[in-house]
Amino acid sequence: MSLEIFVLSLFPQMFAGVLGESMMKRALQSGAASVNCIDFRAYATDRHHTVDDTPFGGGAGMLLKPEPLFAAMEDIEQQHGHVDPPAGRVILLSPQGRRFTQDVAKEYAQASRLVFLCGHYEGFDDRVRQHLVTEELSLGDFVMTGGEIAAMAVLDAVIRLLPGVLGNADSLTDESHTGGMLEYPQYTRPASFRGIDVPPTLLSGNHQLIATWRAKHALYRTWKERPDLLRDLPLTAVQKGWLSQFENGDFSEIDVR
Amino acid sequence: MSLEIFVLSLFPQMFAGVLGESMMKRALQSGAASVNCIDFRAYATDRHHTVDDTPFGGGAGMLLKPEPLFAAMEDIEQQHGHVDPPAGRVILLSPQGRRFTQDVAKEYAQASRLVFLCGHYEGFDDRVRQHLVTEELSLGDFVMTGGEIAAMAVLDAVIRLLPGVLGNADSLTDESHTGGMLEYPQYTRPASFRGIDVPPTLLSGNHQLIATWRAKHALYRTWKERPDLLRDLPLTAVQKGWLSQFENGDFSEIDVR
Repeated sequence: MSLEIFVLSLFPQMFAGVLGESMMKRALQSGAASVNCIDFRAYATDRHHTVDDTPFGGGAGMLLKPEPLFAAMEDIEQQHGHVDPPAGRVILLSPQGRRFTQDVAKEYAQASRLVFLCGHYEGFDDRVRQHLVTEELSLGDFVMTGGEIAAMAVLDAVIRLLPGVLGNADSLTDESHTGGMLEYPQYTRPASFRGIDVPPTLLSGNHQLIATWRAKHALYRTWKERPDLLRDLPLTAVQKGWLSQFENGDFSEIDVR
Repeated sequence: MSLEIFVLSLFPQMFAGVLGESMMKRALQSGAASVNCIDFRAYATDRHHTVDDTPFGGGAGMLLKPEPLFAAMEDIEQQHGHVDPPAGRVILLSPQGRRFTQDVAKEYAQASRLVFLCGHYEGFDDRVRQHLVTEELSLGDFVMTGGEIAAMAVLDAVIRLLPGVLGNADSLTDESHTGGMLEYPQYTRPASFRGIDVPPTLLSGNHQLIATWRAKHALYRTWKERPDLLRDLPLTAVQKGWLSQFENGDFSEIDVR
């Protein structure tokens, strides 16, 4: 089973660098996914290949016209067949959409076809949103020139979850070890670099001590940087004890503030 | 004043497509910003150009060693001078960081130098986080293979805010017209497309009616899709009246559900 991905964009060349390196390159070569970037300007039927026009009712900026996008989508379905949602998703990238999270990435990794519509910030004719797409997706509360880089972020997060893509299966497992918290600090050689030493516990070879150090530092870092993540986590009695220590200003066993 | 941007990455070629098209291409050509992508593997001093090593204390995955990143940063400062924060920022892209938002983009657009450190998801030796970077930044609660695409998203959002970059000054103004709400639906030609008509008010030529239609639909869409955005907004009496209508299930003047 290969995940079939189509990207409709006016700037398909933007994707060349990202698809040609590292994990994405290997995933495409292995056949875990295919990515087809389509310039939907090719589906404009007038002499000037017009894809945008002024908004009805006035206003600044240009809107993407409905016809080229509908035609591009129909061509995909004619050539590759129709896939009903949820297996087939047609995703409009827009700051107005549902927020992209790791749960959405996991959901998309189960699909068989993803189509991404990348527009410009001035936006789409609303008939695209109403009748062509299955969902609107947002990377966050910030404004980008187009949907292309947002699509790349989603592609990366989804493709790395596909079976067989990450060579080292441990890499996926380890992320969930953190159990919803931030990660504990990690170090590699040299043990001392410019007078900054690796915390001695990590060099002790005592696995029990190391595990405790890591658990306590993960909790500390989360408490300090992202306390919101702790709200819904079931904590052990030991973790609750550590939290009271922090709240009382006791950081005696914390090496890395 | 040009914004000086450096990107430290093991895959600098990933940026070629994005920097060579559309708004970013024009901004770099105009001199509003410069982007220098540096392969920090070039700063590894051993024969094999090693940039990663196993974590002290055990665990899956490899960590990025501190030496090449410190050396690359020192080379930048030697060649281009040192810039103190907040004008000079050294940004580590990581899911553990402060969330990127439009406010952060505006802040970065005021800086004179931004340095982005793009790592792999296994992470950095913590001394990089503690002593080299001025801040950690996260695109959202999802996991990507590396920091490169996140850096591209930040570059796009920041560079388009630089003076003179967006040809049509209206495009920036219009975003704030929405006043913290989602945008109203917009349409362009044709007025009827496959039996789906543009709402007649927008074709009426009556600017007062159009303005009211847009304000009401922006409020409706926000109420329906992102009610969280309404919590902190100061609403007029008219808007409050519309909200009570929606809450009572009265959508009589809403053309686009």
